[in-house]
Amino acid sequence: MRRKKGGALDALVRLSAEARRFESAAHFAEWDQETMMPPGAAGARADLLGTLQAAHHARLTAPAYAKGLGALCDLRSGEPRPGLGALEASLARGQWRRWNRARRLPGGLVEETARTSSAAQHAWVDARRKSDFRILRPHLERLLALKRQAASRLGGAHPYDPLLDEYEPGMTVARLDPLLGALKAPLGELARAGKGRGRAGKALSTPYGDEPALDAFTRELASAMGFDLSRGRIDRSAHPFSTGLHPTDCRFTLRISGDGVMTQVLTALHECGHSLYEQGLDPAWWGTTLSRHASLGLHESMSRLWENLVGKSAPFWRHRLPLLRRAFPRLLAGVGLDDVLAHLHRITPGPVRLEADEVTYSLHILLRYELEKDMVTGKLPVKDIPDAWAAKSRELLGLVPPDDRRGCLQDVHWSGGSIGYFPTYVLGNLYGAQLYAKFKEETPSWDARLARGELTVLTRWLQRTVYRHGRRWPAAELVRRAPGAEPSAEPFLAHLRSRYT
Amino acid sequence: MRRKKGGALDALVRLSAEARRFESAAHFAEWDQETMMPPGAAGARADLLGTLQAAHHARLTAPAYAKGLGALCDLRSGEPRPGLGALEASLARGQWRRWNRARRLPGGLVEETARTSSAAQHAWVDARRKSDFRILRPHLERLLALKRQAASRLGGAHPYDPLLDEYEPGMTVARLDPLLGALKAPLGELARAGKGRGRAGKALSTPYGDEPALDAFTRELASAMGFDLSRGRIDRSAHPFSTGLHPTDCRFTLRISGDGVMTQVLTALHECGHSLYEQGLDPAWWGTTLSRHASLGLHESMSRLWENLVGKSAPFWRHRLPLLRRAFPRLLAGVGLDDVLAHLHRITPGPVRLEADEVTYSLHILLRYELEKDMVTGKLPVKDIPDAWAAKSRELLGLVPPDDRRGCLQDVHWSGGSIGYFPTYVLGNLYGAQLYAKFKEETPSWDARLARGELTVLTRWLQRTVYRHGRRWPAAELVRRAPGAEPSAEPFLAHLRSRYT
Repeated sequence: MRRKKGGALDALVRLSAEARRFESAAHFAEWDQETMMPPGAAGARADLLGTLQAAHHARLTAPAYAKGLGALCDLRSGEPRPGLGALEASLARGQWRRWNRARRLPGGLVEETARTSSAAQHAWVDARRKSDFRILRPHLERLLALKRQAASRLGGAHPYDPLLDEYEPGMTVARLDPLLGALKAPLGELARAGKGRGRAGKALSTPYGDEPALDAFTRELASAMGFDLSRGRIDRSAHPFSTGLHPTDCRFTLRISGDGVMTQVLTALHECGHSLYEQGLDPAWWGTTLSRHASLGLHESMSRLWENLVGKSAPFWRHRLPLLRRAFPRLLAGVGLDDVLAHLHRITPGPVRLEADEVTYSLHILLRYELEKDMVTGKLPVKDIPDAWAAKSRELLGLVPPDDRRGCLQDVHWSGGSIGYFPTYVLGNLYGAQLYAKFKEETPSWDARLARGELTVLTRWLQRTVYRHGRRWPAAELVRRAPGAEPSAEPFLAHLRSRYT
Repeated sequence: MRRKKGGALDALVRLSAEARRFESAAHFAEWDQETMMPPGAAGARADLLGTLQAAHHARLTAPAYAKGLGALCDLRSGEPRPGLGALEASLARGQWRRWNRARRLPGGLVEETARTSSAAQHAWVDARRKSDFRILRPHLERLLALKRQAASRLGGAHPYDPLLDEYEPGMTVARLDPLLGALKAPLGELARAGKGRGRAGKALSTPYGDEPALDAFTRELASAMGFDLSRGRIDRSAHPFSTGLHPTDCRFTLRISGDGVMTQVLTALHECGHSLYEQGLDPAWWGTTLSRHASLGLHESMSRLWENLVGKSAPFWRHRLPLLRRAFPRLLAGVGLDDVLAHLHRITPGPVRLEADEVTYSLHILLRYELEKDMVTGKLPVKDIPDAWAAKSRELLGLVPPDDRRGCLQDVHWSGGSIGYFPTYVLGNLYGAQLYAKFKEETPSWDARLARGELTVLTRWLQRTVYRHGRRWPAAELVRRAPGAEPSAEPFLAHLRSRYT
């Protein structure tokens, strides 16, 4: 079936884009909230976001949408109608998956979950400030009960599966356990062997105090990576983020201030990596899963690849350091390539995920993933989380957090209702390493070109291999198609071994 | 009937606020389009605006809305149900008026008008560039035919009435003709007598080239006027504007660059005057007509009052000029109060409305109003507009525009579908002068306080008299209630006579 105007396929694309516009408007209102909105408008903005999200959900579950979808696939199974080409069949399947999730969760449950997690987030802020898990406990209990309800309505081999599926379509506990399990021993070994490696550079980590210089540097870096500033913006916010409103309107932010210059550069690489993915989606299919990130894990790979694999490598800094020194001549006088690499390749195990190095980071995620599964099945009662956290932390990181603030209260995810989200961070590391290994194999000149600053060689490869396909295949399959192998921990471990031993 | 939770009144307020959020989201997307949006996103943004506006219209005309409204008034007549208090009855009437307009215009007509005026605007840009009215003519003919259709569906004593009513609820040709007619002779006389009065100040009109200095000055001025920056923003755009997304989120802009410093200060006074009105609306009734500007004329009065009556007065500059000189010490060295007033009080009749002085400005509007009425009735065929414009211009301004670009092609309004809009500019002058006269009468110390920079004396009075009432009464009645007199041209003429003779 071709996409001719007025045809069934065209009708579904239109309905999907129409629904997607409300989601896009909500993302846009969130972007404004973090970057531009006057502080007094918080209440009105929360109401606006609720209205836009509800309108999006209403469009996806409207009878007209089901009718349009039914013309392309069997509404009970999601099986595409005979005669569809491969691309169209993928679109039908992808749209059906989203529709099927939306219609299985009753509006009341969605609304109660939103309300409960909003209250839980307020409680979390308080609990974290006082380092007292008891303040969060009843909220988290309610939230988990709602998540279990949702999981049982959505169904899956493991109750964790449908929660994970929201962020990583097609991924399951059965596939994830061996994949992540393979990391545990080698990462622990690398961390123990490398503990104390590297040294912090003072000039690189003290606040730089010259925002225009950093802004100019960042804009030039983003452009060099292939970010199109006529289809995007760079701003500042308290927490850096990236948002894609449309392939022609992708925005990312840097942290308002306080960080050292190196953290800001790594943040720019990370967030710009996300935005390049969004700019590279196919506008012709916008609104459908053919123009949507394949999974959060794959999205995260697109940022971590730039931040860690490129941004902590010697060839990258061979070209970039002189430019950075020119932007901050006084601050960085006398800082050499060795100083930069020693700063970037430190291994310093600690209790806090956001301060973790490249080696121990994934261990922080394994800890959360193992607890999360037991929280969802009920094997781990909420009241026992602090003890379980301490035990897992000792097992995986070799240390016990000094308090709950730096332990089980450090992340916003659980109280925000994002349960099943954490594994996507490790998948990002794995996918990224796999894709990068394949890219390097196909591009023998890469190190030399990277040292000349030719960053778009990588962007163009990612455009071809990842961006333009959207959700045509599940992320794991897309990664398999690109490097010709199953998702695996090996390329990631090989990268870490070569850099850290 | 009190507004108790779950009651009929509360239900209608909720439905109205829900609908209003889509309108607010569209205004927000427009603000972003003019200030922040990357240029490549224009196409996606137009689609987003269409979706949001359609969603707003759909909410207003949904059966649920009619049901909620029907609990408070007779849906056929708009007559409030017995037992409502005065405030609630006004709300019911106001909401009914908006609903009644929306439901009388079929979706097809609204959509075709939007499409036609979008095409007409493109044609206008081209026609204006080439100074060739023939390019616009067929578009304007189609647009007028659609406007006549709308007018006949809405009904009114004069076909122009329902078009005017969209911008100035309750105003009619029968009331407007004598009001504006009374201006013609006296303004012509003032213009003839004062022609050549004043002198342009070079330093005041050359581009200033120091944006941070102007930004700081503007922020301080806006704060001094009572603008709450925790509930608003000031940015820059190609054409200055103000938008109220919610009383807690009011934003205005200055022109990006190119203007002289005095134009920018007058623009700040003008746009901030609009934003103060929006910040002063009652958040408790947000979404309803009790928390909506009474009319565009009244909105315009809130800006013109600051720009012209305050901002071109000697006491204002007695306090402000030293501050402005401090902000631009080199540019304004040696510029005194007399120079500023001579610059501001020039009378220079010319063909272009946007360059007009305070005296001749309203004559430009009379010209448009008289042609518009005949265009709507069909008495003036579109092909004859250029000749009619020239004749009216000679009659009212004593000159004929050198070409159509500076004649009947100078304004965006007609091609944009805003027919019936122009009179609100003069009404703004009249209402503003009337309110200001009353304010001064009640505040004998005003000139002295103005000369000390105590601007919020006026803001507080406007808050009490205008802002907080929203659309509780029609604008003309609100003006009457405040000064205790019918809308009249006299205070405006008295002001001009005292300043310009």
